[in-house]
Amino acid sequence: MKIDDNFYMKLAIDEAWKYQLLTYPNPAVGCVIVKDGRLLAIEAHKEAGMPHAEINALKSAYLIENPNSILKTKNNSQEIHNFLIENHDGYFNDCEIFVTLEPCNHIGKTPSCANLLKVLKPKRVIIGHEDINKIASGGVQTLESANIEVSLRCMEKEAYNLLYPFIKWSNGTFIFYKMAQTLNGCIDGTISSKMSQLYVHTLRDKVDLMLIGGNTVRIDKPTLDARYIGGRAPDIMIYSKNKIFDNAIPLFKVANREVFISDDLFKLLDYKFVMVEGVYKLMNILKEKIDYIVLIVSPKIRNGINALNEIDIDFEIVHENYLGEEKIIYLKRK
Amino acid sequence: MKIDDNFYMKLAIDEAWKYQLLTYPNPAVGCVIVKDGRLLAIEAHKEAGMPHAEINALKSAYLIENPNSILKTKNNSQEIHNFLIENHDGYFNDCEIFVTLEPCNHIGKTPSCANLLKVLKPKRVIIGHEDINKIASGGVQTLESANIEVSLRCMEKEAYNLLYPFIKWSNGTFIFYKMAQTLNGCIDGTISSKMSQLYVHTLRDKVDLMLIGGNTVRIDKPTLDARYIGGRAPDIMIYSKNKIFDNAIPLFKVANREVFISDDLFKLLDYKFVMVEGVYKLMNILKEKIDYIVLIVSPKIRNGINALNEIDIDFEIVHENYLGEEKIIYLKRK
Ligand SMILES: [Zn+2]
Ligand SMILES: [Zn+2]
Repeated sequence: MKIDDNFYMKLAIDEAWKYQLLTYPNPAVGCVIVKDGRLLAIEAHKEAGMPHAEINALKSAYLIENPNSILKTKNNSQEIHNFLIENHDGYFNDCEIFVTLEPCNHIGKTPSCANLLKVLKPKRVIIGHEDINKIASGGVQTLESANIEVSLRCMEKEAYNLLYPFIKWSNGTFIFYKMAQTLNGCIDGTISSKMSQLYVHTLRDKVDLMLIGGNTVRIDKPTLDARYIGGRAPDIMIYSKNKIFDNAIPLFKVANREVFISDDLFKLLDYKFVMVEGVYKLMNILKEKIDYIVLIVSPKIRNGINALNEIDIDFEIVHENYLGEEKIIYLKRK
Repeated sequence: MKIDDNFYMKLAIDEAWKYQLLTYPNPAVGCVIVKDGRLLAIEAHKEAGMPHAEINALKSAYLIENPNSILKTKNNSQEIHNFLIENHDGYFNDCEIFVTLEPCNHIGKTPSCANLLKVLKPKRVIIGHEDINKIASGGVQTLESANIEVSLRCMEKEAYNLLYPFIKWSNGTFIFYKMAQTLNGCIDGTISSKMSQLYVHTLRDKVDLMLIGGNTVRIDKPTLDARYIGGRAPDIMIYSKNKIFDNAIPLFKVANREVFISDDLFKLLDYKFVMVEGVYKLMNILKEKIDYIVLIVSPKIRNGINALNEIDIDFEIVHENYLGEEKIIYLKRK
């Protein structure tokens, strides 16, 4: 196996995918640091408001050769930034820094990564995909103006797939369908493990809106909150012509959430980040509008209902990962 | 993400899985070499008769700092072995060598890896799983007798899963069921890509016996050879009480293969490496005897027959990988 730029960029991409969708409204980004051939750090941006991937990686890399540095206690972007500017002492001059996305160039909640790198002066910065956000772009120029060698478009297709949800929600709406099934496509009963359920609650905590079908609400009487992680319950659109529902259904009782009933799918476009759950009948209506299917697959074969047997759709697998003993597969409509 | 022994062993394990089942009768083994913190090589054993994982990795690692060495032209184990013994010049003294399986200690078709390592004297050898083969074992003692530091049982569970087919076929019979389906479990029509079909022919070329159901033979009239890769056609057992078949069915016409018709599944135990194909009705009868399911999943939803909807089985996912745009998932019965 070849150990080249693509190899290290792939490590950065895979690390970033662990936090895909959870960084909303920010992009998922990964960063790898190699110092004089030694792999020192593989890090990612984990959540909006937390340090960017580059900052996490620079911190980890610095601590490898300075394990007792006070930097260990700093978790805030501004503090890490300040510490590194004052104490780097040329540590990064023989480093190659792989970032899945062009380093940010504007000063927002956190200081600009491009400006920090300009000061730290690594040997080379390798970038997966250019920034699509006009406010943040200009990172490459900032680096090049400091005579830092920049290599562009390393694993660009994979970096684009990683960035895709961000591109969609930045310019409009990103809609994904969350499904859970067994290997043979069965959706009956309790399919998912506790760990997968925690993950679903983590997603619910992040999205602007959940879409659910009227019949599912009437039959399953769900709560659709994020209580397993102590998270916020998303607003809900119930897709239904018939506006009459039993008010005792738990989802109506959750505090600080809006619920509305509508059969106008254009309403989804008023939101940036939408999750669709449990409405298999809606798949056919929605299939042209859905960006991703997030499919949780439980490794068992079960005698039961296969809900999807009446449609034909082709996908590209953009990523997959383990969720404990189950699989999570990210599918993009072809 | 922590970059530690487990990280490097995982790279070795993943590389070895690319050749899982294809190394028969040898085990699938991977090897990673890190020299003074620099990741130099990630290699695997690819096929019986070809160099062991350690030999491939030692060669790759040596060529990193000696790219024009004559070693580049050597592909035979004995030649690589001889070259390294004569020319290593202490190159590996600051290396850590991660191997998924205890290095072999006997001289078989290829020279013993443990004896080669003894001469090359790396700083440390990290081993995933001890050898289960009495003839080959003793590698650790050989290394330790040369004062090489050895770390045992690094990612042992994952290393065991990798070794499992070898353990089974070394001591009895390893049986796997090859299936192809869409995301929703549909098995109708042509499911798999050309690349997956090539892979299936590669597997057929390796196995001792294929088991197939009588009705499948009567209806599909298959050939069941390995023509896509110019490989050898495996022997076939047709599972059927009724011994009458149309001799014009292509599988009977393939040269150099034995075909027999039987309803005695104990006959499978006369073989070491058995592949079961296309007999969904047999799944229920066979489920206690099957070690693995090798499941090829095509990323599409299709309106069609779900063949597995009448059984309940639980699995552990032991590995998964891409097969072009499709997924291959290795499942072990729980
Ligand atoms: Zn940044
Ligand atoms: Zn060997």
